[in-house]
Amino acid sequence: MEPVYILGVGMHPFGRYPDKLISDMVEDAVTDALKDAGLAWQDIELAYAANGQPGQHGQRFLRGLGLSGVPIINVENACAGGSSAFFSACMAVGAGAADVALAVGYEQMARGMIGANMARPMTHESVNGLFAMPGMFGMVARNLMHEHGVTARDLALVSVKNHHNGVFNPRAQYRMETPVEDVLASRMIADPLTLLMCAPTTDGAAAVVVGSRRAAARYANGVYIRLVAAAQRSEPYAGTEVSRPDIRTMTMQASRAAYEQGGLGPEDLDLVELHDCFAPAEISHYENLGLCAVGDGAKLVREGATNIEGRIPVNPSGGLLSKGHPISATGAAQICELTWQLRGEAGQRQVAGRSGQGPTIGLAHNPGGITASLSFAHVNVHILKREDALA
Amino acid sequence: MEPVYILGVGMHPFGRYPDKLISDMVEDAVTDALKDAGLAWQDIELAYAANGQPGQHGQRFLRGLGLSGVPIINVENACAGGSSAFFSACMAVGAGAADVALAVGYEQMARGMIGANMARPMTHESVNGLFAMPGMFGMVARNLMHEHGVTARDLALVSVKNHHNGVFNPRAQYRMETPVEDVLASRMIADPLTLLMCAPTTDGAAAVVVGSRRAAARYANGVYIRLVAAAQRSEPYAGTEVSRPDIRTMTMQASRAAYEQGGLGPEDLDLVELHDCFAPAEISHYENLGLCAVGDGAKLVREGATNIEGRIPVNPSGGLLSKGHPISATGAAQICELTWQLRGEAGQRQVAGRSGQGPTIGLAHNPGGITASLSFAHVNVHILKREDALA
Repeated sequence: MEPVYILGVGMHPFGRYPDKLISDMVEDAVTDALKDAGLAWQDIELAYAANGQPGQHGQRFLRGLGLSGVPIINVENACAGGSSAFFSACMAVGAGAADVALAVGYEQMARGMIGANMARPMTHESVNGLFAMPGMFGMVARNLMHEHGVTARDLALVSVKNHHNGVFNPRAQYRMETPVEDVLASRMIADPLTLLMCAPTTDGAAAVVVGSRRAAARYANGVYIRLVAAAQRSEPYAGTEVSRPDIRTMTMQASRAAYEQGGLGPEDLDLVELHDCFAPAEISHYENLGLCAVGDGAKLVREGATNIEGRIPVNPSGGLLSKGHPISATGAAQICELTWQLRGEAGQRQVAGRSGQGPTIGLAHNPGGITASLSFAHVNVHILKREDALA
Repeated sequence: MEPVYILGVGMHPFGRYPDKLISDMVEDAVTDALKDAGLAWQDIELAYAANGQPGQHGQRFLRGLGLSGVPIINVENACAGGSSAFFSACMAVGAGAADVALAVGYEQMARGMIGANMARPMTHESVNGLFAMPGMFGMVARNLMHEHGVTARDLALVSVKNHHNGVFNPRAQYRMETPVEDVLASRMIADPLTLLMCAPTTDGAAAVVVGSRRAAARYANGVYIRLVAAAQRSEPYAGTEVSRPDIRTMTMQASRAAYEQGGLGPEDLDLVELHDCFAPAEISHYENLGLCAVGDGAKLVREGATNIEGRIPVNPSGGLLSKGHPISATGAAQICELTWQLRGEAGQRQVAGRSGQGPTIGLAHNPGGITASLSFAHVNVHILKREDALA
């Protein structure tokens, strides 16, 4: 593959904007990413746009940027939409078909979501109550409790950490400390998950401009953020006998493939942005991504190992729990955060890296779908690396 | 870019199957493509699935093929969905991220379509009656009549030709001759377009397996079908002052870019599968693709130049008018037809090629979207070449 670089990133702050036009959020995010890259809209040779709603196509929401004829392909992969668009844009650059490509994800949930749920088949899980995500992740939490002695307090500690990080992120939906007692005392959603252990309903947009070596040579200024691994899996039932709901296998397989591609391991990571749609997911994914042994996930958060100043910072952006989770924007926003962190531009939430001289390698983990219905499950794992010279 | 080859193609016959499961059609098409490639489902390293309906994800409809963990990314690009999935799969192979990838498009229109129209913005065109495609292409026809002396009979001749070709295609929805008088006498839909000048409502699925040089070396048997150009445009208003509705500019720009990529011109083509959603579109696209000068489109069909045995056969498959037009499947089905033709496997509808020794170069043209609303317009142009040795 031709080397692929992140040339620019941009985000519309995540939050609830029911009265705002999606196009305004999309334009803001893309304009920021273009400005960051030192490029104009007409420099984009191909765009992938991710959204989870019928008819919300990039061709509609990007045209305010100029009638430039930029080709746009729409991607829909539920919560993994943003990273699927990012992957696809990277492939066009990696194949040499484009020097500069764009990935943008956007969602306006405050006006309600239709689509995936509407068309979902009635499986025996869904007719018996596993209709919504909180129920499924409540089961994940119960499984962690049963298998590994995880407590409700451990789950709460994930929320405490990520909300703390969000305080330092001007683009986060929530910027408030949530003491562990508040998390535990918040409204019960799906036992043992309380409200503050669940990602909120969010509107927002995130954009990433990627480019070839040639484009990076022209626009980057001495710091090059390169894609060193891109791996993905769909369907959680390959080669496993783990019983449902299984959010583990896909992430394990995809991250192992990504480590192999990058010629590195979890011990080389300086930071991780992972998909903490619910607090137990973060604990499980510590294990699935190999940040610790299976069963030791809760220990990491108890010991502060995944704090901004910890051994392996996870979700310094605030994660989905605090930054918010506008479905198809989330995966692109993770790439934004890794880029800011790897460049040393993350302000008060900047991680120091294993060397103490700033982070060099970051991993983004973005799954999507409804695993219990056996349908529509996909995970993308990307690894970015800061380099001081072009590859 | 690493060379990309078509390893296998498959189609579920197009038609009306309101009582059939989409998954059955998808599985048939993919199984045929895999069999054609000599591969198994678990050999697929990445799949792009195109569909125009909310929630109709590949993860749902491909799982009957086996729980193999194949990563699936869903693409939605209206009538251009199938070719957008094909393009994206080719890019993953071209970048070296996958040795073998799948593109599949499918649609079940007989049960009704929602999505693009539902979410379409209310522009002044749509509130004044330009709500549906027939109205827009009626205007295209009127424009051709006004500017270039095209007649209703010329439009009818396109339908006559494509229905004639469809007679020889066992996968076509309609396999009946339509004499020019019948086309002209059929029910008026959007003056001057009669029913038989409009593509029908269709269900179906089409699949293409693409692979690297390494994969082609292993599985192909002496005939190699290689992608030599892939170009696309969105938005019809770049660099043009042509008034609306404009279906010309995007196709002109994308095909010129494709010819440049492939180092060839329209005079090198042995056959074309183009997007004849309505009869006047075919006449216009003759010109837009450079098969003749602007204004001479009708002459081609009058003279039989685009017949199967003509100078430049267009839509030997029967095209959208006769083969049918299941939105997101169409672009993938065009690649199937080019592949069969380039291999010399097209039976009674086989084109001879300029040399008389079988065709070598074919072009597929697949646009999508609602140009008059200024939204959601995209066109893909792909050029395939038959080679006797690996590149």
